[in-house]
Amino acid sequence: MAPAESATRITPGNALRPEDIALEVQTGVARPGEDVAEYALRLGDDALILAQRLGHWISRGPELEEDVALGNIALDQLGHARSFLTYAGGARGKTEDDLAYFRGEDEFRSAYLFEQPNGDFAATIAKQFIVSHYQFELYRKLSQSTDATLAAIAAKAVKEVDYHRDHSTQWVLRLAGGTEESRRRMIHGLKVMWPYVGELFQDDALTTRLAESGAAVEPSSLRPDFDRLVGAVLAEAELDVPDVPAAPGGGRRGMHSEYLGYILAEMQVLARQFPGASW
Amino acid sequence: MAPAESATRITPGNALRPEDIALEVQTGVARPGEDVAEYALRLGDDALILAQRLGHWISRGPELEEDVALGNIALDQLGHARSFLTYAGGARGKTEDDLAYFRGEDEFRSAYLFEQPNGDFAATIAKQFIVSHYQFELYRKLSQSTDATLAAIAAKAVKEVDYHRDHSTQWVLRLAGGTEESRRRMIHGLKVMWPYVGELFQDDALTTRLAESGAAVEPSSLRPDFDRLVGAVLAEAELDVPDVPAAPGGGRRGMHSEYLGYILAEMQVLARQFPGASW
Repeated sequence: MAPAESATRITPGNALRPEDIALEVQTGVARPGEDVAEYALRLGDDALILAQRLGHWISRGPELEEDVALGNIALDQLGHARSFLTYAGGARGKTEDDLAYFRGEDEFRSAYLFEQPNGDFAATIAKQFIVSHYQFELYRKLSQSTDATLAAIAAKAVKEVDYHRDHSTQWVLRLAGGTEESRRRMIHGLKVMWPYVGELFQDDALTTRLAESGAAVEPSSLRPDFDRLVGAVLAEAELDVPDVPAAPGGGRRGMHSEYLGYILAEMQVLARQFPGASW
Repeated sequence: MAPAESATRITPGNALRPEDIALEVQTGVARPGEDVAEYALRLGDDALILAQRLGHWISRGPELEEDVALGNIALDQLGHARSFLTYAGGARGKTEDDLAYFRGEDEFRSAYLFEQPNGDFAATIAKQFIVSHYQFELYRKLSQSTDATLAAIAAKAVKEVDYHRDHSTQWVLRLAGGTEESRRRMIHGLKVMWPYVGELFQDDALTTRLAESGAAVEPSSLRPDFDRLVGAVLAEAELDVPDVPAAPGGGRRGMHSEYLGYILAEMQVLARQFPGASW
């Protein structure tokens, strides 16, 4: 992709908050087109649903230090979700809260992996291991987007996801090399989450158009680096890449498993009880 | 109290992490006596149980921004808990994780307020409003403790709790001055949480001994500032200080409501499934 060029004050070098993005879209300085908005919705929904799942671990992890780590990762993801959803909403005059709390299940664009149940701690680590390697490659490339806002969000997020990647890698090695039981659980966790890897790297008409304009890259182009880096960690842990059939996917088109319904029910109930209230 | 004096490298001016405290207690540089350890246990348990309750709100708040705020407050409290529990454990060769995951309900020393159910969002804000004002006065004084480790933990915590206090104050004003419904809920939340205020400020033989040595202050001595500051906010919000009978308390002696059992069951199950495992 070409280096980012923009007349806006959002540039990849700037730290930015969702409030900054909201201001930019409200004033029309940086308003996404339909394609970019739909793409931002995908990434925002991935991060939002992941954050909801991870939040469950606060005070339920195997160590207090780990509670803090997973809690921080959840908040990082929530931050990324806020930025992407704020930007996505800019195309249609919606806020991040409109999008988070007042969309139905079939309007969510998250991939299946994110809504999978936490399972045991090893399964959560397996999910984090896949997600963080995927998001790292994605945000690294996206920080060069011709869309200055996408580039800026990704440039900030990639630094945090780099830590998430390190965190999950250390746990994969620790669980695989720990007790017989921890190794058995790590192997099982990877096997349970692996069917959902394929969907992350599927191209479609939207990503093809965005890749042509330089606003995004084709998901499939991220796969070789993902396979290489994930494979190296698994080799070090003396674990095989799981040989399991891929799940069908469909999250990008709004088709979801029953799990998303439960997540949304929990997430949306308070905001929906008092729509339009000043709190 | 006299200014802190200590030969250790832990001083109120230093930022410190639980790992630093663990090193100090392991090497015997700063090992608490029984009284200080018991006191640290009280403060650590308060913060730990509060963090567990607050963690629930991640992705369940009324706004995404608020999810992030409550999540950050939960993680701050978890950080304070880790420091206090690490220090408390130093008296008997126990780690923070030993204390968090392998004590029974009757060994927890948290006050009743902390284990109260979240209730609705306004009730959680009412609890936060009480807690953050109490902790602010407590940590402010404790940062002058003759016990250098307590002083250092408090000096770090008071800065974070100052933000928690501001956060809860803004919400009390917003809910009280919002819709009829939000005001009704704010009044109800305060009424539900207020019976547990008294226990926070009860002196006993332990706090009297600690106050004499300058390691801590009598809880009752914090009450006038608490009443004054909390009263000022309630007056601004045109709310009455709730006129409700005090609950009996007993948390400092290990007597708890049924709620703590459920909290501990959730919190401890993973660590207890594999005691002594390397993860």
